[in-house]
Amino acid sequence: MYKRIPKLSFLQILILLAPIVSQAQPILGFKPEDVPSQLAIEKKFDSHLKAENLRELLKKMSAFPHHVGAAFDRENAEYARDLFKSYGFEARLDTSYVLFPTPKIRVVELIAPAKFKATLTEPPLKEDATSGQTKAQLPAYHAYSADGDVTAELVYVNYGIPEDYEVLKKMGIDVKGKIVLAKYGNSWRGIKPKVAAENGAIGCIIYSDPKEDGFFQGDVYPKGAYKNETGAQRGSVLDMPLYPGDPLTPGYGATKDAPRLSHTEAPTIMKIPVLPISYGDALPLLKALGGEVAPAAWRGALPLTYHIGPGPAKVHLKLEFDWKVEPAYNVIAVLKGSEFPDQWIMRGNHHDAWVYGANDPLSGAVAVLEEARALGELVKTGWKPKRTIVYALWDAEEPGLLGSTEWVEERKEELQKKAVVYLNSDSNGRGFLYAGGSHTLEKFLNQVARDVNDPQRNISVSDRLRAKLLVDGAPKAKQEARTRTDLRIGALGSGSDYTPFIQHAGIASMNIGFGGEDGGGEYHSIYDSYDHYTRFKDTDFTYGVALAQTMGRAVMRMANAEILPFEFQNFTNTVQQYTAEIKQTMDAMRSQTLEHNQLVKENRFLAVADPKKPFVQPSPLPDVPFLNFAPLDNALSMLEKSAATYAEAVAKAGTISADKLNQLNEILYTSERFLTHPDGLPRRPWFKHQIYAPGFYTGYGVKTLPMIREAIEQENWLEAELGIVRVSDTLVRFAAQIEQANALLN
Amino acid sequence: MYKRIPKLSFLQILILLAPIVSQAQPILGFKPEDVPSQLAIEKKFDSHLKAENLRELLKKMSAFPHHVGAAFDRENAEYARDLFKSYGFEARLDTSYVLFPTPKIRVVELIAPAKFKATLTEPPLKEDATSGQTKAQLPAYHAYSADGDVTAELVYVNYGIPEDYEVLKKMGIDVKGKIVLAKYGNSWRGIKPKVAAENGAIGCIIYSDPKEDGFFQGDVYPKGAYKNETGAQRGSVLDMPLYPGDPLTPGYGATKDAPRLSHTEAPTIMKIPVLPISYGDALPLLKALGGEVAPAAWRGALPLTYHIGPGPAKVHLKLEFDWKVEPAYNVIAVLKGSEFPDQWIMRGNHHDAWVYGANDPLSGAVAVLEEARALGELVKTGWKPKRTIVYALWDAEEPGLLGSTEWVEERKEELQKKAVVYLNSDSNGRGFLYAGGSHTLEKFLNQVARDVNDPQRNISVSDRLRAKLLVDGAPKAKQEARTRTDLRIGALGSGSDYTPFIQHAGIASMNIGFGGEDGGGEYHSIYDSYDHYTRFKDTDFTYGVALAQTMGRAVMRMANAEILPFEFQNFTNTVQQYTAEIKQTMDAMRSQTLEHNQLVKENRFLAVADPKKPFVQPSPLPDVPFLNFAPLDNALSMLEKSAATYAEAVAKAGTISADKLNQLNEILYTSERFLTHPDGLPRRPWFKHQIYAPGFYTGYGVKTLPMIREAIEQENWLEAELGIVRVSDTLVRFAAQIEQANALLN
Repeated sequence: MYKRIPKLSFLQILILLAPIVSQAQPILGFKPEDVPSQLAIEKKFDSHLKAENLRELLKKMSAFPHHVGAAFDRENAEYARDLFKSYGFEARLDTSYVLFPTPKIRVVELIAPAKFKATLTEPPLKEDATSGQTKAQLPAYHAYSADGDVTAELVYVNYGIPEDYEVLKKMGIDVKGKIVLAKYGNSWRGIKPKVAAENGAIGCIIYSDPKEDGFFQGDVYPKGAYKNETGAQRGSVLDMPLYPGDPLTPGYGATKDAPRLSHTEAPTIMKIPVLPISYGDALPLLKALGGEVAPAAWRGALPLTYHIGPGPAKVHLKLEFDWKVEPAYNVIAVLKGSEFPDQWIMRGNHHDAWVYGANDPLSGAVAVLEEARALGELVKTGWKPKRTIVYALWDAEEPGLLGSTEWVEERKEELQKKAVVYLNSDSNGRGFLYAGGSHTLEKFLNQVARDVNDPQRNISVSDRLRAKLLVDGAPKAKQEARTRTDLRIGALGSGSDYTPFIQHAGIASMNIGFGGEDGGGEYHSIYDSYDHYTRFKDTDFTYGVALAQTMGRAVMRMANAEILPFEFQNFTNTVQQYTAEIKQTMDAMRSQTLEHNQLVKENRFLAVADPKKPFVQPSPLPDVPFLNFAPLDNALSMLEKSAATYAEAVAKAGTISADKLNQLNEILYTSERFLTHPDGLPRRPWFKHQIYAPGFYTGYGVKTLPMIREAIEQENWLEAELGIVRVSDTLVRFAAQIEQANALLN
Repeated sequence: MYKRIPKLSFLQILILLAPIVSQAQPILGFKPEDVPSQLAIEKKFDSHLKAENLRELLKKMSAFPHHVGAAFDRENAEYARDLFKSYGFEARLDTSYVLFPTPKIRVVELIAPAKFKATLTEPPLKEDATSGQTKAQLPAYHAYSADGDVTAELVYVNYGIPEDYEVLKKMGIDVKGKIVLAKYGNSWRGIKPKVAAENGAIGCIIYSDPKEDGFFQGDVYPKGAYKNETGAQRGSVLDMPLYPGDPLTPGYGATKDAPRLSHTEAPTIMKIPVLPISYGDALPLLKALGGEVAPAAWRGALPLTYHIGPGPAKVHLKLEFDWKVEPAYNVIAVLKGSEFPDQWIMRGNHHDAWVYGANDPLSGAVAVLEEARALGELVKTGWKPKRTIVYALWDAEEPGLLGSTEWVEERKEELQKKAVVYLNSDSNGRGFLYAGGSHTLEKFLNQVARDVNDPQRNISVSDRLRAKLLVDGAPKAKQEARTRTDLRIGALGSGSDYTPFIQHAGIASMNIGFGGEDGGGEYHSIYDSYDHYTRFKDTDFTYGVALAQTMGRAVMRMANAEILPFEFQNFTNTVQQYTAEIKQTMDAMRSQTLEHNQLVKENRFLAVADPKKPFVQPSPLPDVPFLNFAPLDNALSMLEKSAATYAEAVAKAGTISADKLNQLNEILYTSERFLTHPDGLPRRPWFKHQIYAPGFYTGYGVKTLPMIREAIEQENWLEAELGIVRVSDTLVRFAAQIEQANALLN
C-alpha cells in the first residue's frame, strides 16, 4: 500500500503558497513582525547614498600625498573629523606617537660583472595629474628595513619563502653572506627579508615581476591599469606576525609619554637592509646572474633566462633611514545608542596612504564617510540606534596597523567590555563581494549580502557570488555553492585594521569589500591616484555605494537587533572543516615521509639525478607520528550540540524579559573573547586568538587553529599535542558560554 | 597451534640461495639453457660498439644540408649503402619519386598599424661551423603549404587547436577571412593550419614562443642550447592524419611511372598558405594586436601584453612554391637468415634532414650504422642470425614519412607475409629511455632494457627509468612503478617511420630512444648541427652507444629466439586501461554537460560575466548518452583468458616439433595484423590499426582505440557504438589467434 497524496483545492494551494510569497525573509535578531520596518529603514538609508559624493571625497582626499607625518595626512584627518561632526556625530582625533622611519639614502647598484645604478624612480606621467608632485611623495622603500651598507654576490631566491630555500638547499646553494633578490608574491613582503636573514643573507631586494604584476597581466599604465617598468611597491616589513603596531611600545598604547624601546632593540624591526625596486631596475640584475637556470616555476615574465647565481652579479645596497616618531591621527566619531550606550558597534577603515592612496585606502574610506552621512540623515528624521555606533578612520595603517593597534592597546579593557563587533573595510573595487571574519557572523553576513543589489547585474551581491562559485569554483566550492544555504566567508589573517580587534582583543570582526573585475598594478605606488582609480577601478563608484549599503545594513542591524545576530552552527561547521584539513595534512605528511625515506634508502634520487647538474643527497626524514585528536573531536562534538540547541531555542524564543535579554546579548557579544587565551600563541603572546592568526611564515595569510597547524608544519609534535589540548579547552569554554545562553532561553 | 618453521642448515641455505644467485634472468623466447650463450654474444656485440665511430659518422653526414633533393642527401644515402656493404650486408638504394615543394617566394609583412617586414632569416654564427652555408640551406617554410597571396587582419589563436577556437567563440571572436597567428606546441604543427582553414581563416603563421622554445627554457644558442630570436622551425604540414607519404600516390608506391594526382587535387595538401617564423619576427606582429587581452593560459614569454585582435594588425602573407617531384633514396641492407630467411626483423631510422640534422635524424641513424657494423663483426666470427635482418635508412621522412611509406605501400603484401617486427629510432639524446610500441612487445622490451647499462649511472636503463617514475611520476605512475613488474611503454601515434609499418600494414613495431637531459631549441632549424649536438646533446655519444646496445639486443633476440617473444597479458592489461579511460571520459563528459546545462538554465554565466568584457550566452549542450560497452568488456574478458593460457603454456612448453614451432611463430608475428581492419578508420581508410592511431586533431599524438575515442570526443554517438563493436570484433579475432597458438602448445 502506498499513501495517497490528497488532492488540494485551488484555495488550499493559495493558502499554502501565501506565506512563501508575501513574507519577507527573516533577519537574524529581529522578530518577524519587526522585519518590514527594518527593511524600510534600510531602503531609506540606501536612498541617501550618492556615488557622486564618493567621487568628490576621493578626489579631494587623494589630492596630495598623505602618509603618516605628511601635512596632508593631518589635513585629511581633520577634514574627516569635521565631516563626521557635520553628519551629527560626536567626533575627535585620538592621537598616538609612533615610530615611522623614512629614507635618507637609497642605493642599489650592480658593480660586477657590469655596472648599473638602479633608478629607484617613478617618473611623472602626463596622464596622471598628481604623479608630478615628486617632492612630496615618499620614495619607494620598505618601512622598518634596517640601516645598512652591504656589498655581496646576488642570489635569486624566487618568492623568498621557506619552500624556496628548500629548493636551493637541494641544489647546494647557500645565501649566507649574500644579497638575495626576491620577487613580490606568494607571501606578505615582510616574510622575504625575515626568511633571508634567518638563512644568513645580509641584504634583500624585492622586485615586482611582470608575471604577477606588470605587462603579463595586462596593458601597463598609463595605457592600461597594470604596473609599468618603473612602478615599485612600497610597504612595511615590520615583523607583524610577532606583533603589529608601534614597534617601540609592544602591547601598550603609544601615548606621548609611554616608555619606549630604542629602535635598535625593537624585535619587530627587520635585521637586514631591504628595498623594493621596479622590474625595469631588476632586469639588469637578473641578466647579470649566472649559475644554474632557475626551476620552471621560478621563472617570471622578463625576457631573459632566469638564473639563480650566486654571482657573478655583485650588488651594493646602501640604506639609511630617519628614525622619527610621528603623530598618528585616528578619527573617531560616535553616535550614542539610545538604549545600550555601552554596547559599541564599531566600523572602520584607514585613511593614511603610502602616497595618494586613491584605491588603498580611500576607496573604502569614502564609503565609510558616505555611510556615516546617510546614518546622520536617518537620525535627522527620527531613526535611533539602540546601541552606540562608533566610526573610525585609522591613521598609520600602512607602516604596520599602527593607528588602530595603539588605539586598541590603549583601551583594551574598555573595548573588551563594550565592543560588540568591529566591521572593517579597506581598498574597494569592482566585482564580487569578498568577506572574511568571525564565523559566528557568517549567517548574519549572508543575510546582509542577500539584501544588497549588485550594481551591474540585477541580482543580489550574494547571488552573484554564488554564481561565481558555481561557474569558476574549485570542485568542493562548486558543490557547496549548490548544496549549502550560506556562502562561506574567509578567515581573517592580517593585513588591515581588524587585526588588533580580533587577534588581540577577541572582538568579533568582519572585513568586507568588492573586487575581482578591477585588476591593476597601482598598489603602493605613486600611480594609485584619482586618475588611475576613475579609469580602471570602480569607475562610477557604484561598488563604493554597494559597500556602504552592505556595511550600513550590518551596522544598523547590529545596532538595533533585539537578540544580537551571532550564530554558532556555522562556526562549529567551520572549525570541523579546519580539523579535518589538519588531519589530512598530517596524513599526507606521513605518507610523503614514508615515500621519501623509501626512495632515499633505495638510492633513487641519485639514480635520477642529472650528472651535469648539482646534486645533494637527501637525508631520510624523521617519521611523522600519530597525534591524539580525541580532545578536539570531543570538544567539537560538545560544541555541535550546544550550537544546535541554541539555534533551536532562539528560533522559538518568544518575548524575553529585558533583564534576560541583556544577559543573553552580553553572552553573545563577549563570546569571541572566549576564543582567546591570555598566553596567546607560542613565541608571540600578542596574538591571543586560538582559531585565527596570521601565519608566522605567511604574514597576511591566515593560519586557522594556528597553534596546532603551525606546530605540525614545523614538525614540532609536542607543541602540536599541547595545541590540540589548548584549542579543545578553548572550544569547551566557548561551548559553556553557549550553554549559558541556552539556559537563559529555556 | 602455529606451524613451526624448521631450522635450515647452512648448507641448505646455500642450496636454496644458489639458483637465485647463479641463474641468469630469463629471456623471452629462449630456453633457460640457451640464455648464457645469448648473453655472451650480446656482451661481444657491445664490445664492438665505439662512441668515436658515432662521432665521426655524425660529423661526416651533417657536413652539408641533406634534405630530399639535395645532392648531399643522395651522397649520404650512397655512403651509407656502401658502409652497409663493407659491414657484410647486401645493400641497395630503393628509390621512390615524391612530391617535394620548396619555396620560391616567402613574404610576411605587417602593413598596419605600423610597417614591418619579417626577416625570415637564421643568420650564420661564428660558433656554429655549418651555419654559414646559406645558399645550400632550405629556408624556414612549411612543406605542402598552399600557394597564396593574402592580406587580412591578424588574430592570435594560442596553439590553434580546436579548444582554442572554443575559447574564441565564447569571446565572440571569428577568424573567418582573417590570418591567424598560432604558436608552436600542444599539437603537431599541421593541425594548426588545418583547424584554421576549417574555421574560415585564409592564412596561418606559426611562431616559436620563447615560453616553450626559447629563452624561458634556458640560455639561447650559441650561449646555451635553446632557440634564439632568429631560429625558426621548418616542418611538414601535410595532412598526415589522413594519410602520410607522397600526397600524389595515396595508398600505393610512388614508383617512377605510378599514376599521380595533381598537387591541386591531393587531399593531404594544406588548403591555405602557412609559414613558420621566429619569435624575433613574431614580436612586432603580437605588439600590433589590439582587442581583448588573451587568457592567462594563452600568454607566452615575450615581453608584451598578449592581445587576441582581430587587428588592428593587418598582415600580408605571400607564398609560392616549386612543386617538384624528387627522388627519395631508401637505403636497404640485408643480412640473410640462416634458418628462416623469409622472416624479417626490420630496423630503421631516417637519414634525410631539414638542414644538417645532427640530432634529427643523424644521432639515431649513426647508431643504426654502428649496430650494423657490430653485427657484421659478429657474423665474421661465426654468429648467424636465424631470421633475416633488414636495416633501413629512410629518405624523405621530414616532409611526411614519404620514403618509408612509399616503400611499405609498394611491397605491403610481401611485408605482411614476412615482417616479424619493425624497430625504429629517430633523434637520440642524453637521459632516460623512452619506448613506445605494440604492447605485445612490452615485456620483451622490458627484458632488453633490464640488460643495458645506463652510461651515467651504474644501473640498467630500466632501473634508471623506474627510479625516474618513482621520484617524479604522477601518482598512478609512481604506484605502478612500485608494484608492476614491467614498466609501461607508450602507444605509437605518428611522427616517425614506424607509422606505415604499424598503422597501415599491421606490423608490430617499437620506437626507442634516450632523452630528457638534453633540452634544446635546434629542432628543424639550421642550428641542429654537429657543433650544437656535441656541445649540448649526447656530447660523448655514450647514449648513442646505449641505443645501439638496446636495439642490437632487440634485433638479435628477435632474430634468434626459438619462440618469438610476443606476449599478450601486458597487451590485454593495456587495452583494459584504455577502455577504463574511455568510460571515465564519457562519465566526465556526462556530468560536465549536466552541470553546464544547469548553469545555463539558471543564467549563472550571465550573472558572473564582467559587463566590460564581451560575453556570448552559452547554449545548452545535448545530453551525453550511455553507450553499450558490454561487447568490449566481453571481448576483453575472452582475451584475458586466452592470454593467461598462452603465458602458462609457453612457460611450461618443452621441446616442440619444428613444424609446430614454425606454425606457432607465424601465428605470433602475424598476430598484429589481426588488430587491423581492411576498412581502416572512418574517413581515413589508410589507417588500418584499430588499437593505435595518430589523432585526427592531434597529429603526432596517439589516440588509442581511435574509432571509439574520437567518435566520443566528437560526440558522434552512433559511430562510437559502431566503434565498440568494431574493436570488440577485432579483439575477438585476435584472441582466436592466441587460442590457435594455445592449441599448438597443448
